[in-house]
Amino acid sequence: MQVGLIGLGKMGFNLAQNLMDHKHEVVAFDLNADAVANVKALGAKGTTNLKELVAQLSSPRILWIMVPHQVVDSVLADIQPLLSKGDIVIEAGNSHYKESIARYEQMKTTGVHYLDAGTSGGMEGARHGACYMVGGDPEAWAVVEPLFRDTAVENGYLYGGKAGSGHFLKMVHNGIEYGMMAAIGEGFEVLEKSDFEFDFEKVARVWNNGSVIRSWLMELTERAFSKDAKLDELMGTMHSSGEGKWTLETALDLQAATPVIAMSLLMRYRSLETDTFTGKVVAALRNEFGGHAVEKKSPVLV
Amino acid sequence: MQVGLIGLGKMGFNLAQNLMDHKHEVVAFDLNADAVANVKALGAKGTTNLKELVAQLSSPRILWIMVPHQVVDSVLADIQPLLSKGDIVIEAGNSHYKESIARYEQMKTTGVHYLDAGTSGGMEGARHGACYMVGGDPEAWAVVEPLFRDTAVENGYLYGGKAGSGHFLKMVHNGIEYGMMAAIGEGFEVLEKSDFEFDFEKVARVWNNGSVIRSWLMELTERAFSKDAKLDELMGTMHSSGEGKWTLETALDLQAATPVIAMSLLMRYRSLETDTFTGKVVAALRNEFGGHAVEKKSPVLV
Amino acid sequence: MQVGLIGLGKMGFNLAQNLMDHKHEVVAFDLNADAVANVKALGAKGTTNLKELVAQLSSPRILWIMVPHQVVDSVLADIQPLLSKGDIVIEAGNSHYKESIARYEQMKTTGVHYLDAGTSGGMEGARHGACYMVGGDPEAWAVVEPLFRDTAVENGYLYGGKAGSGHFLKMVHNGIEYGMMAAIGEGFEVLEKSDFEFDFEKVARVWNNGSVIRSWLMELTERAFSKDAKLDELMGTMHSSGEGKWTLETALDLQAATPVIAMSLLMRYRSLETDTFTGKVVAALRNEFGGHAVEKKSPVLV
Amino acid sequence: MQVGLIGLGKMGFNLAQNLMDHKHEVVAFDLNADAVANVKALGAKGTTNLKELVAQLSSPRILWIMVPHQVVDSVLADIQPLLSKGDIVIEAGNSHYKESIARYEQMKTTGVHYLDAGTSGGMEGARHGACYMVGGDPEAWAVVEPLFRDTAVENGYLYGGKAGSGHFLKMVHNGIEYGMMAAIGEGFEVLEKSDFEFDFEKVARVWNNGSVIRSWLMELTERAFSKDAKLDELMGTMHSSGEGKWTLETALDLQAATPVIAMSLLMRYRSLETDTFTGKVVAALRNEFGGHAVEKKSPVLV
Repeated sequence: MQVGLIGLGKMGFNLAQNLMDHKHEVVAFDLNADAVANVKALGAKGTTNLKELVAQLSSPRILWIMVPHQVVDSVLADIQPLLSKGDIVIEAGNSHYKESIARYEQMKTTGVHYLDAGTSGGMEGARHGACYMVGGDPEAWAVVEPLFRDTAVENGYLYGGKAGSGHFLKMVHNGIEYGMMAAIGEGFEVLEKSDFEFDFEKVARVWNNGSVIRSWLMELTERAFSKDAKLDELMGTMHSSGEGKWTLETALDLQAATPVIAMSLLMRYRSLETDTFTGKVVAALRNEFGGHAVEKKSPVLV
Repeated sequence: MQVGLIGLGKMGFNLAQNLMDHKHEVVAFDLNADAVANVKALGAKGTTNLKELVAQLSSPRILWIMVPHQVVDSVLADIQPLLSKGDIVIEAGNSHYKESIARYEQMKTTGVHYLDAGTSGGMEGARHGACYMVGGDPEAWAVVEPLFRDTAVENGYLYGGKAGSGHFLKMVHNGIEYGMMAAIGEGFEVLEKSDFEFDFEKVARVWNNGSVIRSWLMELTERAFSKDAKLDELMGTMHSSGEGKWTLETALDLQAATPVIAMSLLMRYRSLETDTFTGKVVAALRNEFGGHAVEKKSPVLV
Repeated sequence: MQVGLIGLGKMGFNLAQNLMDHKHEVVAFDLNADAVANVKALGAKGTTNLKELVAQLSSPRILWIMVPHQVVDSVLADIQPLLSKGDIVIEAGNSHYKESIARYEQMKTTGVHYLDAGTSGGMEGARHGACYMVGGDPEAWAVVEPLFRDTAVENGYLYGGKAGSGHFLKMVHNGIEYGMMAAIGEGFEVLEKSDFEFDFEKVARVWNNGSVIRSWLMELTERAFSKDAKLDELMGTMHSSGEGKWTLETALDLQAATPVIAMSLLMRYRSLETDTFTGKVVAALRNEFGGHAVEKKSPVLV
Repeated sequence: MQVGLIGLGKMGFNLAQNLMDHKHEVVAFDLNADAVANVKALGAKGTTNLKELVAQLSSPRILWIMVPHQVVDSVLADIQPLLSKGDIVIEAGNSHYKESIARYEQMKTTGVHYLDAGTSGGMEGARHGACYMVGGDPEAWAVVEPLFRDTAVENGYLYGGKAGSGHFLKMVHNGIEYGMMAAIGEGFEVLEKSDFEFDFEKVARVWNNGSVIRSWLMELTERAFSKDAKLDELMGTMHSSGEGKWTLETALDLQAATPVIAMSLLMRYRSLETDTFTGKVVAALRNEFGGHAVEKKSPVLV
């Protein structure tokens, strides 16, 4: 099947190879001429010009967008005038499901089908077998399903229903991921603070073999400890790219009690600071009522 | 290797078979004569008399205790007088690591080695490949390691160090398990409350294939939904058997901030009640200051 | 000072009396003719017609809106065409601060000053001394400050700065309130579950006299227990009117770690259900891996 | 009434003055001769010798112990041999209620009444009117009640019932205090991170006048901001002296869901560290699966 692939970053480039492994014809676009040259060297067609990209695709066109979510809207604005009724756009980044629903409605005004595809599995997955959750019109899904079936791991794709459902599933997937990661981190923190002297890599390995908590995340934990036995070289700053926050915001809108996801997110924010205003207020209050000592900032540090 | 196995419940009976599959000689004890007869039918020796059990073992004796943790102390009290210096006792239940340390010290008074072995993987694991975390004297470990190697899955056992370390690891493993399960549950609750109409079994399947959150727990989630598509037949009462509480208590002693594990435990307690006193107080306060309506109990229900 | 008061509900009617106690001239509007008649009987002017209300006010007009937040926009749409440059509108309900900023901008298009005023203290406060937090143009504030000074308790009003700051302060005030109320509720739940037999009214009284946690909320707790010693007649359903949710959403936007406010909100949502889907998933998982019993719904109840 | 007061620290010295204000006869003991001299200068009797203290008291003796909880056991061991049947010991420090029950039983073996008295209100309270929660034998309570009535604020004392109930109430009081303080701190953190420019002292003042959250803690918040407008000089390290932890541990034993108290405690622990092992694990995992950048420790800092 012919696919117009927009975006040859880490994910897109791997996906291009994955698609070609399965005999799909890739026509790729990226502003970066090197990336285009590289993908052409592997057998794809390619261009740095969106109009050319669209022109090279046969109708109904299938476009797969794999770009940072900040630029999705600008890509859509650029291509919508070039597309025709019946064309299919797949947006496979980490967009908010409400944005995806709005974009679906917008593309529909010109008869273009819009599919929102959440993608999991990282770069490795994009290259050798990803996990997809897809929402949008069922007739468009029926056309492109082979692309997903071929580039996913076995059983690794799901048509979730109406527009937005793909990114909704991906969002909640990430919310669960936040909670799981925090649970693993907290467990190792208890080990680390204990009097026992554990080899964390070995602990992660045994927990990943036969135990109830065996999981890909535990495998990655083992891998991380194999590189740095006590993670001494790392800062514990936990950045976040949005999906965990969206999951909690959605939970609040649905009045769903999700304390584990909430706390895993809030502790990420907490990790961005070495000191907190909450802490200062509480320390000041303890001093006021109980005469408890407060720690003054060292003038040297200030 | 010859093993005296004490306890032929769900776990012990499966372990007996697992040991025999690997050519170990099992001499089993249980008060339940039927269980003993059943294990004898499979090729083990067996008895309902502890003295006989000990008498049948050659020195240094190896005893593997697989009984509910409430009866561990009574079993130990019964066997300690029968054992000799150099014998090895493996306690493979869900004991608190501090109890295990105390028992280790107590057994040491008569020269008996005591190993605390945390076991994960459920009944399936006991039968076909478990996951073990073991603490205690290294010289005793060296003797019995083959038993663990043979009955574990590959890479599924770890000698964690001094007495208590085995049950400590198992405890923290379960703490992580609480957090992971809660994260999965909360994710599905968000799906369930949303306007989308997801097939939860299919969602669990896709999340278990290629995604970041693929895990045995997600596999079990799929299995659970395959039996009852919306879990309509279940009550969401979340009982707990102690390890999550111990993990949190240990975290508090170590001043480790473990909010995800804490919340997963507290929500289990919350699930044991349909109404709360906290809620009544808050509802009463809202009524006092804001005139907000309170819900009165229906007289019929009271 | 002359005030056009829009809204004679629980809060507005009490405020009208409070204003008149301090010799302010109240011209009141409500669609409910009875409410208007009642306030006129107390010495106010009144009308059920907005145009008439505006016509009776001398320039620059001062309008104080005290209506449910759902109808604020419709009231503003009705009055904006009737107002002139330099008039001042005070909106004293529980609006989201972002809405207030948008309304401020909208009113500014016709030269009307818009002040957002958060009001605390309940009906009692509206009648005898409220607590106000006000945002908007300083020159408008300078004009109306006497109204706030007179109807507030001593030190009970604050000009917080630019548009939105009043409702922002009120929002955060309510977020703190959620946390405080939950803390009190949880404390009494621990008492209630303990083996001791406490008289909760007396406990609330002693905690409200001389202790660190003495507070108006503790006074209200005493009052609530004085009416129903164990709150036996109440359901612990904790409804919420939005500000706690807004506080958490704002905290997420600001990446502020606010776990106490978050949990107090999530437990309100939790209280709306007697069973949870999270709980069902966790119970199902415990059954899958450990053979732990699940509680089936009674067919009679289903 | 004659009281033997053991301990002339911050609390004890203030209490001595408070007792004398109400015409009670104070016979004070402290190892610190200066403290004894100071209290004598104010009209008390005093000694640095426990035997002398006991000898100076008429039967039935009343001893009020106001010492750090670490030395309570040693004081009790010293005085028990000196006391007679019917004497009354009041222990007014921050002991765990289970310890108090054990001490009650121990003192009972020699016929001595033991009362556990939780004290709140800080040094100011000890001097001018404290808040007391007392447990123990009702007949002993009947004897000493005047001491509590006189040195408490009005309505500021409660006999809570059997042994341990006093310290249980104080423990839960502190648990609530943790939650309230955290709620206040979090609220100000949201203000501090917002785009508005609030004067925190003024905010605390307005919230303490007429609002729902008016409270002594808010008064202290105002006082703290009056000294340091943005608490710039303080570190936000939140130490804890045990009662919050005990409250949570008790809640776990009672299976009471107390997430707000739990999080207020865990955030105190979190504040003791500038970086966490949990954070390192999560950061490492994000890097493993998503190639997300990690922050390396600066070699200069290490």
